[in-house]
Amino acid sequence: MGSGNNNRLSRRGLLLGAAASTIGTAVSATASATAATDAGDMLDLNRRYDFYGEVGQAGIRTPPQRHIFYMTFDLTSPLRRDLQVLLARWSGAIAQLMQGGTIGQVEPSRPNATGFDTGEALDLGPASLTVTVGLGPKVFTDTYGLADQKPPLLRNLRQLPSDDLKPELTGGDLSVQACADDPQVAYHAVRDLARIAKDTGAAATRWTVMGFGRASAGKGQTTPRNLLGFKDGTRNIIEEADFEKFIWLKEGGPSWQRNGTYQVVRKIKMHIENWDTDRIGDQNNVFGRFKVSGAPLTGAEEFDTPDFRKQDPGGNLVIPATAHIRLAAHENNNGLRILRRSYNYTDGINEIGLLDAGLLFISYQNDPAHFETIQEKLGASDALNEYISHIGSGIFFVPPAPRKGSYIAQEMFT
Amino acid sequence: MGSGNNNRLSRRGLLLGAAASTIGTAVSATASATAATDAGDMLDLNRRYDFYGEVGQAGIRTPPQRHIFYMTFDLTSPLRRDLQVLLARWSGAIAQLMQGGTIGQVEPSRPNATGFDTGEALDLGPASLTVTVGLGPKVFTDTYGLADQKPPLLRNLRQLPSDDLKPELTGGDLSVQACADDPQVAYHAVRDLARIAKDTGAAATRWTVMGFGRASAGKGQTTPRNLLGFKDGTRNIIEEADFEKFIWLKEGGPSWQRNGTYQVVRKIKMHIENWDTDRIGDQNNVFGRFKVSGAPLTGAEEFDTPDFRKQDPGGNLVIPATAHIRLAAHENNNGLRILRRSYNYTDGINEIGLLDAGLLFISYQNDPAHFETIQEKLGASDALNEYISHIGSGIFFVPPAPRKGSYIAQEMFT
Repeated sequence: MGSGNNNRLSRRGLLLGAAASTIGTAVSATASATAATDAGDMLDLNRRYDFYGEVGQAGIRTPPQRHIFYMTFDLTSPLRRDLQVLLARWSGAIAQLMQGGTIGQVEPSRPNATGFDTGEALDLGPASLTVTVGLGPKVFTDTYGLADQKPPLLRNLRQLPSDDLKPELTGGDLSVQACADDPQVAYHAVRDLARIAKDTGAAATRWTVMGFGRASAGKGQTTPRNLLGFKDGTRNIIEEADFEKFIWLKEGGPSWQRNGTYQVVRKIKMHIENWDTDRIGDQNNVFGRFKVSGAPLTGAEEFDTPDFRKQDPGGNLVIPATAHIRLAAHENNNGLRILRRSYNYTDGINEIGLLDAGLLFISYQNDPAHFETIQEKLGASDALNEYISHIGSGIFFVPPAPRKGSYIAQEMFT
Repeated sequence: MGSGNNNRLSRRGLLLGAAASTIGTAVSATASATAATDAGDMLDLNRRYDFYGEVGQAGIRTPPQRHIFYMTFDLTSPLRRDLQVLLARWSGAIAQLMQGGTIGQVEPSRPNATGFDTGEALDLGPASLTVTVGLGPKVFTDTYGLADQKPPLLRNLRQLPSDDLKPELTGGDLSVQACADDPQVAYHAVRDLARIAKDTGAAATRWTVMGFGRASAGKGQTTPRNLLGFKDGTRNIIEEADFEKFIWLKEGGPSWQRNGTYQVVRKIKMHIENWDTDRIGDQNNVFGRFKVSGAPLTGAEEFDTPDFRKQDPGGNLVIPATAHIRLAAHENNNGLRILRRSYNYTDGINEIGLLDAGLLFISYQNDPAHFETIQEKLGASDALNEYISHIGSGIFFVPPAPRKGSYIAQEMFT
């Protein structure tokens, strides 16, 4: 998983080697012979995580897997009981799926019976599957007798300067974030859960995004790249103490919500063909980092702390005032931090023949206002805005992991 | 890669175990504890293949990787020289990409320069990348002075009974099949090649499909499953002698076309939500196989040879007359065989809220009529037709691998 430091260095050597050759001729490929010798870059498709637990749901602190299927649902039944059954059935199914299992028979012995499980993940390992369930604002209403269970800070996000939201990519009453190191394992999970939703009559599919390659690092992972080619997630939250401080709910609201968190999701379109014609100096200034190394413009290595006050000999800020890392930095946001768990996506080719791609941005925080504060600043000044549009959005409360024998948010029905 | 027989058996045990529990309750997940212990299920992201060679292009006989980006292009310049430059530049770029490299500088030293390579695959291994280039019928016309170089059997496919083709998903003058075990590596390759096409003015993007999970086996691989949950590719071509007989061109046409082949691609929509409500007995009859084991209905193990004449005590064929494996079998098609190299895809949720998914079917054969013969039979009688629609289509001649120092189809310009 990920490549070590040695590999990074050899790849950088490779890059310089390749740059010396002329593009467009059938160059010898031997220059890159050192790039592929890191025996550590293996993906273990048998790794698995537990669904049940004592703290937050899996898929938040879990090191980001390589693939995501994210899907939202609309509630379609006004009955409290239907919602309850759905959450109970989803929980039982997720527990089995995360162990690499099926949710029931694929091939019942009676030929007239229908399989419970759709079967396409048979023979595949658990592949680090995690399924994380979120509850939208509509859950906590009088319709379901749950108004008094509302997480105190759950509400619709306010309009932000970067918004260009499409209704068909926005909202939802329930969310399912399925992440795995095999896309078919993640797809299978979402498909089986969508089937249960339909079967109970409680909810129907709303919008979905399939993401890959991840664009945020977890503990022990090297930092991946977004589709603008930049490392994304260098300053992400990884320490236990920061999860306690910024992610997990500790007080306020019903006690069953302790160790829950708020999930914000944004579908961010990137105008990658425009970006690809931009000068490298401008690209580096937009992010405030060097593209290849990921180092801040004031540093030499990826994890060097940015010096936001440093000026060049002409008196200009080295990390420009509109640079993405300056605006997003906790130093410049009263210490606020959010956990990012984003993935790259592509929707193929758009109606005018351009590559249609971007970022499925997902953040976790113990107060949605933290996301809004940072995004309001980014949306107003970020040099990146020329190349991106926020086209989809959602907000959900993510209950803590259920204990064994229980199910997601069981306590709110009692 | 794939799981061994032991794992298959333990998964089957798991399945039976899961079936005994009640769906919808928070069952213990310990039943599946044996499923995830096959230490062999590792994916080596440093594996790489050579672009240059003496026979067919990589990506045909190569064991199928886990991901595909398939893209077609329209020729946009009438100049022979532009086509020639495009194929030369693509070849040089592909050779470097397959080694895990970039196609040139990501971060030029002059800030006013633009990067050659978009950079999002830096730090990633070669991940078994192969890029396979195909030439459509329009290449071999008087426009480019190439009418006399036309592969003798290249022509548009005739209309088939299964056709429900959408113009925006059909045709193309060039095709790029990029397969890798990491989706970002495959995406990066296609993006860089699309950029070169734009830069030369020779070609523009037409349609694309991103596929995953593969649905056909290669040598040494276990058989994967399509999104109908069935193993797909059990009887695929794997032996050298069959490649010589059915895939690589050996005679007819210009000599540079030896070891070329014809690529047929079909985007096949699967109505998976309808399928999921079908009785298991019917599903097994539609394919002619048992869903879990993959064994033919006349056998006990996946690789048992189907007995197409066997009848049940009532005198009915055990493998029905309309079963997919009967209609597609070489025994019932005068010995015809084609190489299938297909992938699953999803387009998310369709306009009526149903999961929108299917199969990117790709076949290779030394005569496109072989595909037509089999598909005509399937389209007319296959029980599967109720659940699928062919919505996209293309046909391309795939030249042999270029020798080092040369580029794809160089000989046709001399």
